[in-house]
Amino acid sequence: MAGTLYLEDLSPGARFTSGEQALDAAQIVDFAQRFDPQPFHLDVEAAKSTFFQGLAASGWHTASITMRLLVQSGLPLADGIIGSGGEIQWPKPTRPGDVLHVESEVLEVIPSRSRPERGMVVVRSETLNQHGDVCQRLTTKLVVSRRPAG
Amino acid sequence: MAGTLYLEDLSPGARFTSGEQALDAAQIVDFAQRFDPQPFHLDVEAAKSTFFQGLAASGWHTASITMRLLVQSGLPLADGIIGSGGEIQWPKPTRPGDVLHVESEVLEVIPSRSRPERGMVVVRSETLNQHGDVCQRLTTKLVVSRRPAG
Repeated sequence: MAGTLYLEDLSPGARFTSGEQALDAAQIVDFAQRFDPQPFHLDVEAAKSTFFQGLAASGWHTASITMRLLVQSGLPLADGIIGSGGEIQWPKPTRPGDVLHVESEVLEVIPSRSRPERGMVVVRSETLNQHGDVCQRLTTKLVVSRRPAG
Repeated sequence: MAGTLYLEDLSPGARFTSGEQALDAAQIVDFAQRFDPQPFHLDVEAAKSTFFQGLAASGWHTASITMRLLVQSGLPLADGIIGSGGEIQWPKPTRPGDVLHVESEVLEVIPSRSRPERGMVVVRSETLNQHGDVCQRLTTKLVVSRRPAG
């Protein structure tokens, strides 16, 4: 966690871009075996006759990779990325061979009235593949610390 | 995927309860190393001085376990659980030693006008620990098939 940004460093419109992560079929299947064991996430052949018409990553896999990209390079907050919740959409499936990165924008900065040492920041993070398709759109409310005094 | 339910089998108010899954510190740390490498998810000692005041599972880990419980026992849909997105909240952290299960309720059933073979179903799924605390509240829009003709 090499982040340096506190609440007072963020304002609406601030943008951040993460590094990239490539995803192959083996990773998609491994995640699915652990957490989302359905044919369209588990087996290239079986996936062909499903809604997805081919192997697709679990949406929760896309979400988890997005988190990794945000933590490692996509949103350099000093006290880490702590979400209380949000809205998530998967407009397009993530496929084997995709190379993902995350583009984030600060939408709102809300200092806490009751807790002067922190506030909430609303961030929209889009996870894009190498074609520029948005595979995931996530809007989260994050708990962000103010810079410590002194 | 042993589910048998189609769109016409679902109506608002229908409820489903999953089996249970226990979570230990090793699983929390393993997931965090892969997808959410932050001190409060990685290290019991380091976590004590963070926002979480102790080791807590990544919210995406809770979400992924929730998906596994839904797929395996929590929502027996004939063509699987296919979400286009939703709203997620984590009112309480998931902790080492927690035993989770998922309670789901159908909120809305929306037949598709353009695609007679399917519809959307809005489902609220609460992930509870052994104390009855809600660790995650997820409201998703699922794509659900109608029963095939004949």
